[in-house]
Amino acid sequence: MISSQVKSQLIEIVGSANYDDSNAGRLVYSYDATPQFQSMPDAVIAPRSTEEVSQIVKICNTHRIPIVPRGSGTNLCAGTCPTEGGIVLLFKHMNRILEIDEENLTITVQPGVITLDLIHAAEEKGLFYPPDPSSMKISTIGGNINENSGGLRGLKYGVTRDYVMALEVVLANGDIIRTGGKLAKDVAGYDLTRLFVGSEGTLGIITEATLKLIPAPETKKTVLALYQDIDSAAQTVSNIIAHKIIPTTLEFLDQPTIQVIEDFAKIGLPVHAKAVLLIEQDGTEEAVRRDIALIEEICTKGNAVSVQTAQTEAEAENLREARRTALSALARLKPTTILEDATVPRSEIAEMVKAINTIAEKHKISICTFGHAGDGNLHPTCTTDVRNSEEMKRVEQAFEDIFKKAVELGGTITGEHGVGEMKAPYLELKLGKAGIAAMKAVKQALDPNSIMNPGKIFAKDSLKRVVVTK
Amino acid sequence: MISSQVKSQLIEIVGSANYDDSNAGRLVYSYDATPQFQSMPDAVIAPRSTEEVSQIVKICNTHRIPIVPRGSGTNLCAGTCPTEGGIVLLFKHMNRILEIDEENLTITVQPGVITLDLIHAAEEKGLFYPPDPSSMKISTIGGNINENSGGLRGLKYGVTRDYVMALEVVLANGDIIRTGGKLAKDVAGYDLTRLFVGSEGTLGIITEATLKLIPAPETKKTVLALYQDIDSAAQTVSNIIAHKIIPTTLEFLDQPTIQVIEDFAKIGLPVHAKAVLLIEQDGTEEAVRRDIALIEEICTKGNAVSVQTAQTEAEAENLREARRTALSALARLKPTTILEDATVPRSEIAEMVKAINTIAEKHKISICTFGHAGDGNLHPTCTTDVRNSEEMKRVEQAFEDIFKKAVELGGTITGEHGVGEMKAPYLELKLGKAGIAAMKAVKQALDPNSIMNPGKIFAKDSLKRVVVTK
Repeated sequence: MISSQVKSQLIEIVGSANYDDSNAGRLVYSYDATPQFQSMPDAVIAPRSTEEVSQIVKICNTHRIPIVPRGSGTNLCAGTCPTEGGIVLLFKHMNRILEIDEENLTITVQPGVITLDLIHAAEEKGLFYPPDPSSMKISTIGGNINENSGGLRGLKYGVTRDYVMALEVVLANGDIIRTGGKLAKDVAGYDLTRLFVGSEGTLGIITEATLKLIPAPETKKTVLALYQDIDSAAQTVSNIIAHKIIPTTLEFLDQPTIQVIEDFAKIGLPVHAKAVLLIEQDGTEEAVRRDIALIEEICTKGNAVSVQTAQTEAEAENLREARRTALSALARLKPTTILEDATVPRSEIAEMVKAINTIAEKHKISICTFGHAGDGNLHPTCTTDVRNSEEMKRVEQAFEDIFKKAVELGGTITGEHGVGEMKAPYLELKLGKAGIAAMKAVKQALDPNSIMNPGKIFAKDSLKRVVVTK
Repeated sequence: MISSQVKSQLIEIVGSANYDDSNAGRLVYSYDATPQFQSMPDAVIAPRSTEEVSQIVKICNTHRIPIVPRGSGTNLCAGTCPTEGGIVLLFKHMNRILEIDEENLTITVQPGVITLDLIHAAEEKGLFYPPDPSSMKISTIGGNINENSGGLRGLKYGVTRDYVMALEVVLANGDIIRTGGKLAKDVAGYDLTRLFVGSEGTLGIITEATLKLIPAPETKKTVLALYQDIDSAAQTVSNIIAHKIIPTTLEFLDQPTIQVIEDFAKIGLPVHAKAVLLIEQDGTEEAVRRDIALIEEICTKGNAVSVQTAQTEAEAENLREARRTALSALARLKPTTILEDATVPRSEIAEMVKAINTIAEKHKISICTFGHAGDGNLHPTCTTDVRNSEEMKRVEQAFEDIFKKAVELGGTITGEHGVGEMKAPYLELKLGKAGIAAMKAVKQALDPNSIMNPGKIFAKDSLKRVVVTK
């Protein structure tokens, strides 16, 4: 609850146009892209500067009011659901690209910049920002940094973390700190930059970031390889890496996923193939030509029934775009779509895909699987109906089995979506009690009053991931 | 002080052969590669397993005994000087390469493995571990991880941090945790892996690490460009990057450095050039040929008086090796050598080199400058004599001016050497009070009794970096 006195203080900071505690206004920010999670905030506030964020945080810290920083809310872990009420902090005014520095190859941005706008701004200078989460058309860079977003190009280029060079952060006590710099090397104390990346808004509020850019690759080529068995496709993934080729992209899609994407996008995908690999390589003309020729050969030797290289960039972009629509396409099938991102070492991909199918059969539910095979980052996706509570219990049990299997294979419960509220009950599977205790100690140190996005990452008690009853 | 009872407990864990509290034994580990810092430990202990480390730590935590983990002690920040006494923990028994995983491109090692042995082991499998600190022939990987070591290949390939995928760490309470995994993507909670990298042994003891390997580059070429003015050399650095070429190595050496290296190594270096750039590119044959041709052109246009590409790998290795001996060569000049690593955005290299020369003149001391120009990571090096206390005061003042200038230019007080005891008084220049407070909170959270390498990173009070009186 926000008292009328605190409300007045907050309005004094941001102006009444940027403070909204109407029912309609709050309802809009009571959920994010994650199914099954909803909780009303007490107010929605849109600061215009770092200084305003700092003033807001000080008031919230004094009055123990939770703060949930939010970009576009595209996360899939209930990371921006206002679990314990409080204030949702929007960055709609803090959405400028502040600088592109061509000498140091950096871009400095406010958190509200849309990821794709940032990518395009870099491209206009012949530079390249590789992280490309599927939501990049609407996600913000602030959200990407808080969730340490991955994407299709992660295999070769890494994830958001690998591009964050410097941050401005407002801490829970209102202090404004600056970490890192336009520096390839900086070991002045602990790596706070990377501690904040992926911390899901639970340690502080990121108000500015300087990101690394790299020279744009000269060219790229895209291959589609079709398989009549999943094992051969998975084995091909291992074989490509074993040949010491690191493609930009190495995506896997199973037959049910291909079918729904084709129904949705209608671009002539091979709906009868049991599995498809979408492989992309970039670099110099010569290196790409050579790598793609070798990749085609490896696919063919690995029992691919068809191996085709896209003839034009438009054709390649169609394929990439089709892959990116997978979630939207799957979401059309049934009322509820639960998309997961259990991740394993890439050598375990075949084993994991088989395990997912066995688990789905055992619990009599429908799971499609696609994902970043080169990273071992799979997206087993269940289409179901939350109103069917008996089925939802089986879905719950299936995902718990999937997480356990991933960890057993040396993997993790989340490769790129984050823990949020949704996967908090499973974090102990990956970290053990001692690992969680260490993380909680860090949280307590930086946010002693637990005002920074409370209810995320650390579970209360239950192993139940989806809140079935509302 | 270690009581006889505690001593018995420790000997029971490691055996009497691995516990040494003799004067001679302690003296050996009372200092590291950093001039001017020395402090006697109470004992030196060499555990044989993670379990033994955990048992030792529990005892130390109970009795508030400081622990200083130590590899080969090659650091240059007094990071392994037992500032507050206690136990020096050696990894001479924990020095095995545990696994090279060719499917997942990882190497798993114990902390005592020598860096160059690790690099060679990877090369035997056609794989590549890029970080190459100049001390790599004797430094250990555990030390590299604790200091987040850089090296000559950092410009293109990044630093140690960028290759650490998973750690086993013994925390101050004796808990053994495992962070990360053989996973390209993992966002299960805070990035503890990177929090421990570069934490200088102040948060926990690293007992095992899994590192990323990459495919070895096909070929490499090395260019030496000579200049008669420093500005032209510095400008060439910027011009190369502006052409969107990221060389593997882009080293700068000033005339005095070249002279002493040549006196030391006698390989025919151009001792009359005012500045030299050592530039290396690796990759595919075609890409390297093209980049090197363009680099030669940029150097020539940028007023280089001579531009030569090494004709054989032996010749190139001679040049690299000469560069790596810079510290040893400089150390022969005078009794005391103080090598620093103030770092700036690469666009500020020319400005920084000029400022260093101005500062040296102002304080009437002799400073040579060389370093990783592409990273903005310079090594201004003062040859002096600690017995001359009047000169040492001027040296102190000069380095303080250099740090201030680096920070003013958007840089940092240390690019790759770490803070340790030596640069702790200057950390506030970079981080401000709020930044230091945040780091101290993290330290306090994970090591409440301050037993983990105490006296490092955080300053007590003085701005004096070098303890002149001993």
